[in-house]
Amino acid sequence: MGEAYTQESYSRFNRHKERGTYDAETIHNIVNTTSVLHVSFADPASPFPVMLPMIGQIGQYEADVEPHLYLHGYVSTRIMKVTSSSNEADGQSQGLAMTIAATKVDGLVLALSPFSHSYNYRSAVLFGHAALLPSSDNPETLWAMELITDSVVPGRWQHTRVPPTSSELTSTRIIKVRIASATAKVRAAPAASERRDLKDPDVVGKVWQGVVPVWEHFGEPVTNKAAGGVSEIPEHVARFVEAENVNSEEYAVGVAGERKADEEEE
Amino acid sequence: MGEAYTQESYSRFNRHKERGTYDAETIHNIVNTTSVLHVSFADPASPFPVMLPMIGQIGQYEADVEPHLYLHGYVSTRIMKVTSSSNEADGQSQGLAMTIAATKVDGLVLALSPFSHSYNYRSAVLFGHAALLPSSDNPETLWAMELITDSVVPGRWQHTRVPPTSSELTSTRIIKVRIASATAKVRAAPAASERRDLKDPDVVGKVWQGVVPVWEHFGEPVTNKAAGGVSEIPEHVARFVEAENVNSEEYAVGVAGERKADEEEE
Repeated sequence: MGEAYTQESYSRFNRHKERGTYDAETIHNIVNTTSVLHVSFADPASPFPVMLPMIGQIGQYEADVEPHLYLHGYVSTRIMKVTSSSNEADGQSQGLAMTIAATKVDGLVLALSPFSHSYNYRSAVLFGHAALLPSSDNPETLWAMELITDSVVPGRWQHTRVPPTSSELTSTRIIKVRIASATAKVRAAPAASERRDLKDPDVVGKVWQGVVPVWEHFGEPVTNKAAGGVSEIPEHVARFVEAENVNSEEYAVGVAGERKADEEEE
Repeated sequence: MGEAYTQESYSRFNRHKERGTYDAETIHNIVNTTSVLHVSFADPASPFPVMLPMIGQIGQYEADVEPHLYLHGYVSTRIMKVTSSSNEADGQSQGLAMTIAATKVDGLVLALSPFSHSYNYRSAVLFGHAALLPSSDNPETLWAMELITDSVVPGRWQHTRVPPTSSELTSTRIIKVRIASATAKVRAAPAASERRDLKDPDVVGKVWQGVVPVWEHFGEPVTNKAAGGVSEIPEHVARFVEAENVNSEEYAVGVAGERKADEEEE
């Protein structure tokens, strides 16, 4: 892509600037490989921000439009209410202001002092405005449903009972978020400690310093036998599980030991 | 515990009520075993809610006080600013209103139709008011730092270079959140589909239905050899990695196949 989001006052990095980026490809990759996104928005009727775990994907519906975030969730009725009432109240139509976070933990970074402990992680935050797509007979809605389903297991949509019935289409909604700005932060490095501790033979001789790699692991698929149907695990599921486990382990283990010089804390 | 949070207008369940609970023990367990919490609060200077990934733990500092959430993050300077300015502005001292989410994915639930797809998951949301603990020479602050460090790897605090230096203590802050209400949702069951699809031999004969168990897996710890110190992986780290992997796999695989009757979608 080579494209980047613009820095806004609300998307500035305050600490660990060296870990931060506005690079669109990095941000989209983190969002699109994270199982659960956390979606936050204000509800005028509540003293606390609403926070919902949802499934979503960034995609480009047409080649000449910018990529948008598409969210799918059973809880969309709540967002629907807030969206329409907030639009009525302030007369604007740009949609509900939302912040969406995607975070992947890649390792426990165990350093010499507790204060140098950290995680290896990839974290993205999107800021945008949300609107509901029409529920049925809308090509973009159907496209987004397939995009999100296939993000869970590639090729899943075509291996299920499709097309959706009309009652499925009216009960499920897709939220489309126009991205105003976005950021990512990445730590991908071995354990690091402060110079003061690294120079102290007593500390270095006593405390183990290293990284425990972490990744989301997929187990052997478990068939629902009580349903009495297909018992053989299909190729698209088996292949996905195998490939994901290899890739995830490779990344987490790779970044745990990558940097050779410069053990000082960033 | 046997205790429960009270239902408030902002903590009501709107959908899948059968998955919801206000049980304190369930909620605390989810929060305390989730690697990253997502913290959201309003910033008067931003059109979007702030969203930060942070590390935290629920704990009880003294036996006769209710459990609070303690958060640790390098980004606390931003929260500090918002906290103090919001307190000044409205003259109240109850602290910054925050919503905190903890979500664990336990399985990909692949059903007959895309609309019956789901995750096995454990999700908790806390609503509360945040205040900063004093930075140094405060027993509760030190206690919370140890609590949070040991939540990453049990016993880690005492196996590192402690006590903290005075500069570490002044640069690191702990945020204490008084919990106003809290909820959890849990799905822990095999794949389930709609009766309509389960009765259709064509669908049941073609589409595989099951769960891919998912868990956070810890790899072999990677020593930072360049630091030239302890090369043997210590007992507290090795034991933790082994036990966690066994427990996590057992849970995710267990709930993937547990329910024998009632395959209909909840």
